[in-house]
Amino acid sequence: MALRVGVIGGGQLARMMVPAAVELGLDIRVLAEGPGMSAAIAATAEGDYHDVDTVLAFAEDVDVITFDHEHVPQHVLTALVDAGVAVHPGPAALAVAQDKILMRTRLTELGLPVPDWAAVRDTAELQAFLDEHGGRAVVKTARGGYDGKGVRVVSGPEQVEDWFLALAELGADAALLVEELVSFTRELAQSVARRPSGDIVAWPVVESIQRDGICAEVIAPAPGSAGRISDMAEGIAVRIAEELSVTGVLAVELFETDDERILINELAMRPHNTGHWSIDGATTSQFEQHLRAVLDLPLGASGMTADAAAMVNVLGGPADGDLAARYPGALADFPEAKFHFYGKAPRPGRKVGHVTVTGRDVDDVVFRARGAASHFDD
Amino acid sequence: MALRVGVIGGGQLARMMVPAAVELGLDIRVLAEGPGMSAAIAATAEGDYHDVDTVLAFAEDVDVITFDHEHVPQHVLTALVDAGVAVHPGPAALAVAQDKILMRTRLTELGLPVPDWAAVRDTAELQAFLDEHGGRAVVKTARGGYDGKGVRVVSGPEQVEDWFLALAELGADAALLVEELVSFTRELAQSVARRPSGDIVAWPVVESIQRDGICAEVIAPAPGSAGRISDMAEGIAVRIAEELSVTGVLAVELFETDDERILINELAMRPHNTGHWSIDGATTSQFEQHLRAVLDLPLGASGMTADAAAMVNVLGGPADGDLAARYPGALADFPEAKFHFYGKAPRPGRKVGHVTVTGRDVDDVVFRARGAASHFDD
Repeated sequence: MALRVGVIGGGQLARMMVPAAVELGLDIRVLAEGPGMSAAIAATAEGDYHDVDTVLAFAEDVDVITFDHEHVPQHVLTALVDAGVAVHPGPAALAVAQDKILMRTRLTELGLPVPDWAAVRDTAELQAFLDEHGGRAVVKTARGGYDGKGVRVVSGPEQVEDWFLALAELGADAALLVEELVSFTRELAQSVARRPSGDIVAWPVVESIQRDGICAEVIAPAPGSAGRISDMAEGIAVRIAEELSVTGVLAVELFETDDERILINELAMRPHNTGHWSIDGATTSQFEQHLRAVLDLPLGASGMTADAAAMVNVLGGPADGDLAARYPGALADFPEAKFHFYGKAPRPGRKVGHVTVTGRDVDDVVFRARGAASHFDD
Repeated sequence: MALRVGVIGGGQLARMMVPAAVELGLDIRVLAEGPGMSAAIAATAEGDYHDVDTVLAFAEDVDVITFDHEHVPQHVLTALVDAGVAVHPGPAALAVAQDKILMRTRLTELGLPVPDWAAVRDTAELQAFLDEHGGRAVVKTARGGYDGKGVRVVSGPEQVEDWFLALAELGADAALLVEELVSFTRELAQSVARRPSGDIVAWPVVESIQRDGICAEVIAPAPGSAGRISDMAEGIAVRIAEELSVTGVLAVELFETDDERILINELAMRPHNTGHWSIDGATTSQFEQHLRAVLDLPLGASGMTADAAAMVNVLGGPADGDLAARYPGALADFPEAKFHFYGKAPRPGRKVGHVTVTGRDVDDVVFRARGAASHFDD
């Protein structure tokens, strides 16, 4: 009998687990939000992941439950655990990923490097933080943000007035997260995978290039990262994974500052856009590793299979919606590029796919990955 | 709208097309022989591929029909073509793969190097061939053989008496194929892929090691093949693909003889066991390339991503049927190995999976691939 993995959520991260599961001989089953999701090929159920009965029924027949995203409510997660289902990552770890204020609190308790931050419940508290930090700061909603949503750079409390109004409905303790505007030279990301029984492996630290708050490109390994930067990044991610008992893949987004420090930006407890390059550029991809980790199987080697890899997202896609019409030109011009599409309809700003190129020279792979991805621009 | 590929047959070759299709953003649909087949995750229909109506209904909604095997009858293939369905490889090419006597006839007409052969209709004709070839020869049924089935080494006609009796029912022209017993130093295999519009790419020639008529191991590239051997093998496969208008992947099994000739053993017009290493060791795997080729998309680069690759089949599996119980030991001992399982129940001699290891040194990758695969021995 094949090992059975149930994935809650039918997005592209669940989709990209499918090839790894098929190759490893695992039985992968997806609880999709509805028909036609990215991971539809593996969908064995459709339903609302907020509903305990739906999720319990889906989980009845699997060896482990894992996730396409971090949004499954805590009461659903604990109901699974109470029913004896193996859930990885577990509720306590996911709680930290689900709430940015809790995340900052825990990282601060652990003495890990984070930007200056505060939880602010009203405009006066936000104004006080702004006054102490040069008049500008980043405000984030504690929950529900992604890809630049729920994040604003502000110079006055009135710029998040709508968020404060919404907070009022969440109760007296509800707060926004405010962080110093970090002066960084670049953004890095460090992914690790951890088994429930404790083993951890790390991929090389990568550089991620964001546009409009969305990851646009990733370079592996991050140029010039060998040695000190790599050691710091890996040390931080390993510490977080261990201290928070994260199981599966943990991705840590990092700032590298002008003064050569590394600060933690965000966490994701799942395969992450900054790790997509690993499908084509590492011995074990983040998707295969996530499956191995959540099943508590021995982890695979995470070294690179080439000197350099560049991943460029296909964002938006052609306005006519016809990605397939672009294949002949793109595939002909870049026979060495690896194209990945998510079965999603093109829409401005939407991640519909990515392209990875591996090779010896970092400038060359970046140039070619950009060229290949640009065939799918509007 | 994603491009739609329909695959007839639900075996492991269809299964291994699934990861490539998912990554490329293709919609892959499989007509499986029944429930629980290897490619069940992509099965959208179950039915008998000998039945024209079943196959026409399956083909209604796809951009191209391709195959997990070469057994779809000619009248079904021509019905598809007559209905306006794109079929790759097409009926004329597949006819040559379906009948070993027709295959030998066509290759001989093309002047390609084949062992001495004859079509023999009775024991007298077979005895005459034996008398001319030192008293021993290989007899093959023209149709339906695979993995050593339908192949016998004989020293007298009585050893294939059952086959001659069966021939009688097929009509007066029915014959067996008899071939000289080639004195070979090793077996090679050359795979190429060809688009309907004509482009061809070749992978490196590989060495295949057979046990009991079944492919057991493959080494890529074939040691010592650079230059003359590689040129001859590629030349033969390209010529066959072009002359027979093969579309998709063509695998040519070859003998390398004592006197440094290369002779054609068998053909397969589909991804082939000798190309499984390409999933982990080539920029474009045979499964991705097959999909690109049958859709008439530009072909991908077929170069190796490592100096050497070794593929070892998992044959039979543990007698208790529990492959999953062997994962922890195998994955722990060989973190760099890539494990592939086909969702098939273990049974003596059955191909249930394979392991590939890539690296710099051929002896090392062979040693490690054997070690990893041996964890699944009974």
